[in-house]
Amino acid sequence: MNTKWTDEVNWDERGLVTAIAQDAQTGRVLMVAWMNRESLTETATTGQAVYYSRSRQRLWRKGEESGHAQRVHDIRLDCDGDVILLMVEQIGGIACHTGRSSCLYRRLESSGSAERTWSVVDPVLKDPATMYPSKKNSPSDPS
Amino acid sequence: MNTKWTDEVNWDERGLVTAIAQDAQTGRVLMVAWMNRESLTETATTGQAVYYSRSRQRLWRKGEESGHAQRVHDIRLDCDGDVILLMVEQIGGIACHTGRSSCLYRRLESSGSAERTWSVVDPVLKDPATMYPSKKNSPSDPS
Repeated sequence: MNTKWTDEVNWDERGLVTAIAQDAQTGRVLMVAWMNRESLTETATTGQAVYYSRSRQRLWRKGEESGHAQRVHDIRLDCDGDVILLMVEQIGGIACHTGRSSCLYRRLESSGSAERTWSVVDPVLKDPATMYPSKKNSPSDPS
Repeated sequence: MNTKWTDEVNWDERGLVTAIAQDAQTGRVLMVAWMNRESLTETATTGQAVYYSRSRQRLWRKGEESGHAQRVHDIRLDCDGDVILLMVEQIGGIACHTGRSSCLYRRLESSGSAERTWSVVDPVLKDPATMYPSKKNSPSDPS
């Protein structure tokens, strides 16, 4: 039997799977999004990261607005088939819609007291307003 | 107003959030699981990775059966608050229930033809049967 490779992915009830993008050079986890079968197939075929935007309900070709595309070096699948890992080259060095290199920019910190806080530990490298010229007031993550 | 740090997490309708464990030393993405509020709080308090197992519907203290616990060095939150990243020290060097270092051990490869296949590219470091003595015949991922 010739099983199609996309059939080995454990798509959820919405036809989606979790997709992580990791910087192939620095090892930094850049972002987490969703993929459907069409976006995974296009990613494998073109070598450019394509996700599925739940809010827009359509394919999201990473960088289509911001120019911050991702060249895909490697595609991995996890043991139970419900996580895809993309090893990517992040064009422009910015993966996050806030203008930061990675979306994982808040770090849990505790001061002397027992109270913990999320601290922003990564700088904004580019003003989001210049990244999304079509949405002057509300740049948003299309996830 | 004093917002509790766990209130800044964007819990889904089930009260869960995606949690990624990354090896703090090698940078390798080790696994993806779920967390609820209780497991995140316990992780922050104890410095040991605690997830929420959907299949068992209870907290899953990573390594409780296998001994392959994770010491947590750092906890990060993403821009829209629905992904947690743990930077961990993986005890025993094995994160996956298959006995491999990482759960992301299948790589998409294409031979000369157009057909792609998922190839297992990481070795089994430990026989799963010896990792889960209580389940001789069916070691399984509790995710």
